[in-house]
Amino acid sequence: MSLLIKNIELNGVCTDVLIQGNRFASIAPELEAEGAEILDATGMAIIPGLVNMHTHASMTLLRSYADDLHLHDWLNNHIWPLEATMTEEDIYHGARLACLEMIKSGTTCFADMYWHFHGVARAVEEMGLRAVLSSVFIDLNDEARAEKERKLAEKLYEESKRYSDRIGFSLGPHAIYTVSEASLKWAKAFARENGLLFHIHLSETEKEVADCLAEHGLRPVQWLEKNGLLDEQTIAAHVVHVNDEEIEILARRGVQVVHNPGSNMKLASGSFPVQKMLQAGVKLSLGTDGASSNNNLCMLEEMKLAALQAKVVHGDPTLLPAKTVFDMATGNGAAALGLDAGEIAEGRLADCVMVNLENPRLVPGYDLISDMVYSADSSCIDTVICNGRVLMRNGRVDGEEEIIAEARKYKNRFQ
Amino acid sequence: MSLLIKNIELNGVCTDVLIQGNRFASIAPELEAEGAEILDATGMAIIPGLVNMHTHASMTLLRSYADDLHLHDWLNNHIWPLEATMTEEDIYHGARLACLEMIKSGTTCFADMYWHFHGVARAVEEMGLRAVLSSVFIDLNDEARAEKERKLAEKLYEESKRYSDRIGFSLGPHAIYTVSEASLKWAKAFARENGLLFHIHLSETEKEVADCLAEHGLRPVQWLEKNGLLDEQTIAAHVVHVNDEEIEILARRGVQVVHNPGSNMKLASGSFPVQKMLQAGVKLSLGTDGASSNNNLCMLEEMKLAALQAKVVHGDPTLLPAKTVFDMATGNGAAALGLDAGEIAEGRLADCVMVNLENPRLVPGYDLISDMVYSADSSCIDTVICNGRVLMRNGRVDGEEEIIAEARKYKNRFQ
Repeated sequence: MSLLIKNIELNGVCTDVLIQGNRFASIAPELEAEGAEILDATGMAIIPGLVNMHTHASMTLLRSYADDLHLHDWLNNHIWPLEATMTEEDIYHGARLACLEMIKSGTTCFADMYWHFHGVARAVEEMGLRAVLSSVFIDLNDEARAEKERKLAEKLYEESKRYSDRIGFSLGPHAIYTVSEASLKWAKAFARENGLLFHIHLSETEKEVADCLAEHGLRPVQWLEKNGLLDEQTIAAHVVHVNDEEIEILARRGVQVVHNPGSNMKLASGSFPVQKMLQAGVKLSLGTDGASSNNNLCMLEEMKLAALQAKVVHGDPTLLPAKTVFDMATGNGAAALGLDAGEIAEGRLADCVMVNLENPRLVPGYDLISDMVYSADSSCIDTVICNGRVLMRNGRVDGEEEIIAEARKYKNRFQ
Repeated sequence: MSLLIKNIELNGVCTDVLIQGNRFASIAPELEAEGAEILDATGMAIIPGLVNMHTHASMTLLRSYADDLHLHDWLNNHIWPLEATMTEEDIYHGARLACLEMIKSGTTCFADMYWHFHGVARAVEEMGLRAVLSSVFIDLNDEARAEKERKLAEKLYEESKRYSDRIGFSLGPHAIYTVSEASLKWAKAFARENGLLFHIHLSETEKEVADCLAEHGLRPVQWLEKNGLLDEQTIAAHVVHVNDEEIEILARRGVQVVHNPGSNMKLASGSFPVQKMLQAGVKLSLGTDGASSNNNLCMLEEMKLAALQAKVVHGDPTLLPAKTVFDMATGNGAAALGLDAGEIAEGRLADCVMVNLENPRLVPGYDLISDMVYSADSSCIDTVICNGRVLMRNGRVDGEEEIIAEARKYKNRFQ
């Protein structure tokens, strides 16, 4: 199957883009391709699909269910009790809503952590996105629970192979305060053995750091380093409370650090030390976290939050310029997941977004990257293509009404 | 002319809303009104139109023209040289683009400060919004220039009466560092004499405070207080760098303080002391500032920025909850401008927005206010009504293609 995109703006120049199968085959003006489906893209620009590097997709079902609360009140009294009632079917409906929202805002790939793996995987398979999905692993230092979680992870990894190439499996040890040392080591060993990513929340709150210091005499990153758990296959989300030595460790080990500005701000977790991270050469990407602490999955908004917060926190308006944050949200995320994507270039995976340059928020249009980071919203996204397949055209996703109708039923069920 | 909105959700209840002339005439289920135009609003909710309390609307023409720069480099080397070349016709085209963007994101009213008053007023008149427009007043302590500016303000005030009731005139003394003491006093006296608002930038940067201390031995708010320039008819934008005594003065005088989180963050001006302002009972509303320091005029985004930044700056996730920030963006702004608007209630001015509850970002839909503040973007806005007239329906504004085509021409002219 071939798709020929005609007259699209790429890096400020008008060109054609031919997609064959799931890759960009040719990028040049006035291409022809017999039998290809033609997309007229006059008045549009092409950018790489956005990569959301830390989500709990199905938490869309909890969007605006409990806001403006202290973290522990929010989790213990609102979120966890409700999550405990959710079935795989619920998770499936939440993940479909999440995929729909992500497609509408230009995201083509995400790295998730949640319960009921198959509920999420089935939604992603149907919706056409690319994703690396982890089944959250929590044992609370209980050996029986640990044994059960390990068996489940092994089983789900085997079962995950039934899905298409768009869906990858990763280990999802929740955090150092919810997973035993033995299980963290087991998960990293299993990940290394099978070439899988290891996705963990890290140093999100001051409490996590204080507890780790009290228990181990080390800060979280130091403790993970001592246990040999950090490498390039480690996705560490949040990473707000780290000192200079920890930042140096993260850089040296090539850890994939995910910045989640919206969630860190909304929960008042703290301010990400982006300047030191950049100076140390830490690998940085961007994620929204779940929709109940954000409250959406919009990477366009997340780019703006990242750039604006970096500037005000460090008192430097030149910090985290538009291009840097755009790269975090595209190429860096793709690289972190080991994907041959994140760039519009011949031979790469065809994950891309067509942006409507006639949207008032993108006018006059001096600098598309600045416009995408500082001004765009989802109304600017016209077409989304993942793995060579059109998931949205003219802002419409097939079947969106049914997905929304199913998800709206939770309003009455949960309220 | 009557407009009957059928089956719309208001505060969680389905009802009808009858608009007669420019006001809400009746709000009740199953209304009938002979000869009224009917709007079927099934699946939608009604909220007050958003009020953007500090803009330089025509700076849309400079959107993404110069980003990620230090304030003085940005102003002196990029923004001011370009602004100096702009004609009233340019300002008209920029203001039309601004109005279009504001309508699309649910704003029905704004308080502006810019040059070429008639360029802005003509655009607002045509686009159907409500606005209080100030002509920026800068004399740089030059008596000849001050005389010219005073004459211009008097002339423009007289000329402003030719526009409809939707357009108000206000004094626009730029700031204490660009306007002489004599002119500030003249402007406030003229405003008081004619019942007009006085719109000024105040304590935006640390430099402004340091310079004021050096020159007068007082901080900016103290100095304005000493000169009798603060009252309920004063709109003070930014107000980032103020101490406890200044906050107490602002509260006591009933000054209308406008929080501009996006601009303050992007230019790294500083963090607004929202907690102390709230505790002191300062009147707070919300604004985007101009599109070159934001880079859009979207009050939906601005609400989220305000809430999220307040929480992380003060380390308290309960601070500035959704309802408080929503009120800042609606009723508080309307009250600051002396408008009988900002609420969906019988007898009030019919400035309102119909929100599409089927948008995935508003699903499941537990709490509309939380959803509007934390999740919505302009794609959720279906219909906008100002002064009883429909400005947008189904996300479409009449004539938008022509407005965008004209504004896009500036890309080649200015680049």
